[in-house]
Formats: sequence, C-alpha cells, structure tokens
Amino acid sequence: MVDLRRWNVPTLAKSWPQGTLLDCPGIRIGHHTRESSTWRTGTTVVLLPPGAIGGVDVRGGAPGTRETELLRPDNMMDRIDAICLSGGSAYGLSAADGVMRFLESKSIGFPVGRQDGWVVPIVPAAVIFDLGRGGRFDHRPDAEFGWRAARAANDRSLRQGSVGGGTGARAGGLRGGIGSASRVVRGTTVAALAVVNSVGSVIDPDSALPWFTDGLELQAPTARDRDRFRRHFEDVSRPLISSATSLNTTIGLVATDGILTKAECQKLAAVSHDGLARAIRPAHSMNDGDTIFGVSLSRRPLNDRPIGSSASLLDDESRTSLFNDVLEAAADVFARACTLAVLRASGLPSLPGYRDLVPSALRGFPLN
Amino acid sequence: MVDLRRWNVPTLAKSWPQGTLLDCPGIRIGHHTRESSTWRTGTTVVLLPPGAIGGVDVRGGAPGTRETELLRPDNMMDRIDAICLSGGSAYGLSAADGVMRFLESKSIGFPVGRQDGWVVPIVPAAVIFDLGRGGRFDHRPDAEFGWRAARAANDRSLRQGSVGGGTGARAGGLRGGIGSASRVVRGTTVAALAVVNSVGSVIDPDSALPWFTDGLELQAPTARDRDRFRRHFEDVSRPLISSATSLNTTIGLVATDGILTKAECQKLAAVSHDGLARAIRPAHSMNDGDTIFGVSLSRRPLNDRPIGSSASLLDDESRTSLFNDVLEAAADVFARACTLAVLRASGLPSLPGYRDLVPSALRGFPLN
Repeated sequence: MVDLRRWNVPTLAKSWPQGTLLDCPGIRIGHHTRESSTWRTGTTVVLLPPGAIGGVDVRGGAPGTRETELLRPDNMMDRIDAICLSGGSAYGLSAADGVMRFLESKSIGFPVGRQDGWVVPIVPAAVIFDLGRGGRFDHRPDAEFGWRAARAANDRSLRQGSVGGGTGARAGGLRGGIGSASRVVRGTTVAALAVVNSVGSVIDPDSALPWFTDGLELQAPTARDRDRFRRHFEDVSRPLISSATSLNTTIGLVATDGILTKAECQKLAAVSHDGLARAIRPAHSMNDGDTIFGVSLSRRPLNDRPIGSSASLLDDESRTSLFNDVLEAAADVFARACTLAVLRASGLPSLPGYRDLVPSALRGFPLN
Repeated sequence: MVDLRRWNVPTLAKSWPQGTLLDCPGIRIGHHTRESSTWRTGTTVVLLPPGAIGGVDVRGGAPGTRETELLRPDNMMDRIDAICLSGGSAYGLSAADGVMRFLESKSIGFPVGRQDGWVVPIVPAAVIFDLGRGGRFDHRPDAEFGWRAARAANDRSLRQGSVGGGTGARAGGLRGGIGSASRVVRGTTVAALAVVNSVGSVIDPDSALPWFTDGLELQAPTARDRDRFRRHFEDVSRPLISSATSLNTTIGLVATDGILTKAECQKLAAVSHDGLARAIRPAHSMNDGDTIFGVSLSRRPLNDRPIGSSASLLDDESRTSLFNDVLEAAADVFARACTLAVLRASGLPSLPGYRDLVPSALRGFPLN
C-alpha cells in the first residue's frame, strides 16, 4: 500500500510544493522547444543558485557529456552554475555554449581574474539521441537553444512531457519526454528532473501500467486499453531493443537543499540510478547513455545541530541516518520523474503517447 | 647515459620519421592560431584515421573536458574521429563543435541512420586556461577555430612551440606551448603531442636545464644564463603556484599503431601521466586540469603472431612484454613532448621563453 502523504502529490501543483524540481529553493528551469514539420528537438536548462555543488554518475554505455570530469570528488571544482540537458546527440553539447554565454552576460561563474566579469560558468551537460526524428538530420540544438532556454528559466512553473530536451524523446516504443517529482524527507527537500529517451519501457506490458507506481493515483486500465497497449508493445519492442545503431538515453538530475559534500553529491547521483532501474526495464543497456547529476543547494544541515558543531560529520549517526533517507528519496523521485515523463508526453501520429494507448489509466490524472 | 638510437631524433625531421605524432600512420594535425595585440589563443585538432579507438585518464584537479565519459572501457563507443585541444578554458570546448561540423561535412563519424551522411563524429576535447592573456577576456576560441584547425590538418609537417592550442600557454613562469615526440619500440610506433600550460616548471631551476633530458642534445648552459634563469624563476614561481585562481593544465595524447583494446588505451593514457610527472614539477596540482588521451590506430598486432591466432591475447607473454615496452615508451614520449613544448616556445615581452633566458643550452637545437 502506498502512503500518499509522503509524496508531494501533483494535484497540489498550483502552490508550493509543486511536486517538481522547482520545490528546491533557488532553482530556475527553462525550456526551448522547436517542433514543426521538420524539427522535433529542444533543450532544457536548470539554473542553480550560488553555492550549488555537484557530482555525476554515468552508467549508460553510450553517453554524450561535457564537463563531467571536474565533478569527480578528487577534482577541485565543486561549484556548478547550471546543467544543460539537450537533444541532438553529441551535436547538442553545443547548447551548453549558449548557456555559458547567458551566464557570462550576468557575470555568473567561477571568478578567474581581477575584473568582475571575468568568470567561467560551470555548465555540465548531457544529451539524448533524437537526431532525424523531426525529419531533418541537421535540425538539432545549437548554442542558441541553450541561450534561449536559459533566458526562459523561471521558478514559477515547469512544463513536463513533450517539451525542451524531451521534445524528440522516445521511450520503449512510446513518446518519451521530461518528468519531475519531489519529496520532503524529515524537512529536507529532494527533487528530480528526468529526460527519458530509453531503450527500455517504463510501462509493464502485462498490466499496461508503469513498473513504478508509488505515489501515482492511476486507475485500472480497461481490458481494451490493455490489449491495445500489448499489441503496440509487441510491434515495437523487438526491433527497438535489438538495433545496434539505436542510441537512447535517460539523463537528468536529483537536487536537494540538504548540505552535502561533493562526494556525497556523487553518491546521490549513484543511488538515483536505482530509481531509473525501478522505473525502466531494461535499463543501463550498452545503447543507453544514462547520466544523472547530483546537486546540493547547500542550504540545510542534514541534522539538527547548528553548522559548525564540533562533532565530526562522518561520525554523526543522525546525519548518516538522514542522508540514507535522502538517498532513498532520491531513488524514489527519480523513478517517479522517469514515469511521469512518459505519462505526460503527448503522442504523435508516428509515435503514440501512453495517454493515446491507455487513456483509461489516466482518468483524473494531471497531465500538464 | 642516454642511447640516442632509441629516439626518433628531431634533427632527422626532414623525412620520416619526424620524431612527432605524425609518425603514426594516418594521423593529420592542424593548428589555428590567433595572435595579435588583443588575441593570444588557438586550437589544435588531431584527425584520426578510421579504426582509431581511444581512452582517457584525467588527473588534474580542474579539468575542462567533453566526451570523456564514452571513452571509459565499460562504455560502448570505442571509435574516435578526432581530438580537439584548445585554449579558452571551458569556453573553448565549443571548438569541438566546429570539428564535428567539419567531419560531418566529410561524412566522417559514427553512423546513426539509414542515410550515408547521418553520422555523429566522436570528438573528445580538453582545454587549457589562457583567458585574458591576449588582453581581452572575450577573445577565445569558438566553433570556427575548431573548423579552421581541422581544415588545416595535414600529415606532412607539424609546427611546435607557440602555436594552435598552445599559443596562450604559460608553464612555470615561462611561455608554454605545444611539443611532440615519437619512438619506435620493437617495430611499434609510439608518439605524443602535449600542450603544456602547467603550474609547475619543466626546467630545473638549479641547472637551468629540463628535468627530463633523455634523448635531447642540449648544451651545458653558461653561468650567466643559469643566473638569469634562476633570478627569473625566483621572481615568478612563488605567486604563480600559490594563487588560488591560477588555473593551469597540461593536455595531450599518446598514440600508437599497435592494436590495443579500449581498456589498454586507458592504460596507455594513465602511464603517460608518469611522463608528465617526470617532465613537470610540481605536477597534477589541484590547479591543473591534466588530461591525456590514449589512442590506438589498430594497425599492427603487438606480437609476431598473425591476427586471429587462437592464443588468448591476455595469456600471451610476448604480447604483454611488448605492451609494457609500449607503456614505457608512452611515458618517455609524453615527457619529451612536454619538454619540447617549452624549449620550442617563443618568448613575449611579458613572458619570456626558455630560449630567451638560456640560449646557451639550445645551441644547434632544432627549434621549429
């Protein structure tokens, strides 16, 4: 049985908490979406408040990344200014150029000189493979996409589904997209944003319901919808999974207002992959480029002691206990974000959405 | 005593072997240099022949990188099409966009669709910090630098010193730059290219000679030159090393025509860092972003058996013995490339070159 009280339920979305990554204080998110007869791709940018530090865990076999090395715990740089999630495969890494330019224009970044504007914005990035899905191979995000997504960033509302970096996404034969979820665990907020473009499926072909349903108020699908979904799944799943040139990816981040070390941010990212594994089957294939960033907003100590207490953090049992809860919540919110990405995606004539095949499960469900 | 026969001595540079990375068959190298009253930066691109596979080892505390995750041995993608080494700190990662565009225009890259031109070029990149050294903070490499360097790539000659990605380099208070070296070990070619922008120095302040002199025909410096160097070094070394915002880096690659697995390419990169450690002191500081790529051109089996011999490669003692020799050679050529980068750099009024301070050591030495 699922205890709904522990979730920020999406039906409360009008006011705080939204049940999204925006519940983390100081975070702003912007999409740039380009969808037409020849375009189907986009970029999503997460702008982080000052003091944010990050880690990363890359698990997929075919990742496309930028600025992940500096996030390793043994490297110096711990601050990050933004995360760029984009379509376009490796070409889409150029979206981060535009995010850097936007941040530089605001003098936001790592200071490297005597003058105020001399900054290097730290913008780790990951991409999904969506090339050619809009019809034209050369219609893919560039620096302007990153700049526009950064300029659009706000902390008021977050569109999910077929938008931004998730516009061109495909997940186990359904349209993929962007999802977000949050939880508060003992006062600490933990929230995720996922762009799901996976080889595997978030939907169980037998039940036609998501593998991960915790905290989601879904209805039992009608027999007709179940049959429709099963037929579709059998049609698409075999060729999709076996194709050697099929490149897919789930990318995203988990953030918390809890104060974490850089190494703990990497641990946060690592355990978030457990959520990916619960929500998507199969997961982490050699054709996936699964990459999750872990971010601490450095706001809230992970125990009741004041900051600067003389007790060693590592020896502090209550802190470890709360960090374990944060990790469990990280896996939960990432699993939920992956699932919502597919539930909230809108279908296309060539690529149905879950809502098209199993509408009966979504009666009363807040789609976007 | 140094056995000069084991080196490809630079005085033979007119014909093959050149004693540079160009001794590896199929490699082409291009620079784009921009140096004027307000510019001092550039980009160097190494174009690799079909079948090249790569690994990477990042050791510095402040790396700026792109597409390094896919090079990890447990990830699927092993082919790489080019390596982009650029100035501009993280901004300079955009140079790889231009290299990708150049390669795409030639239909070179990982094939991802039914049509011939649908390729994703795999272009790992690393950058050095040289921002503002030409006078203007916003004068730094962009995609056009990568495109121009790729277009200039050739297999005939390689300029070293203050050129391409090494144009804005500074190394231990001297002008840094680009160096390259090669060796043939039991028939297998091993060659390196290094861009040296290190916190540490390649020159021993006591002798005014490089820390690593194997295979270099240098003369004993005059007492006057030794004194001049020592005074300069004492002036510059303390503030350079202690500055918290001083960001430096040595980046480069080691390539071999020997057939290596992807994991062995990573090992090649790892042992090349030993060469960096021998040539530069201190090395691998938290302010360095030291990154070395390891590349196999997949041409020449590492033993005398024909390819397809039934013996397990790992069990093959003669292969392991030759791989160990290749690794030793990798450290040697990388150390030599680092040293040559500084010896061949030309000085500036604001930043002397080694040749300006210790000309007596370089009598008869081929500078470029």
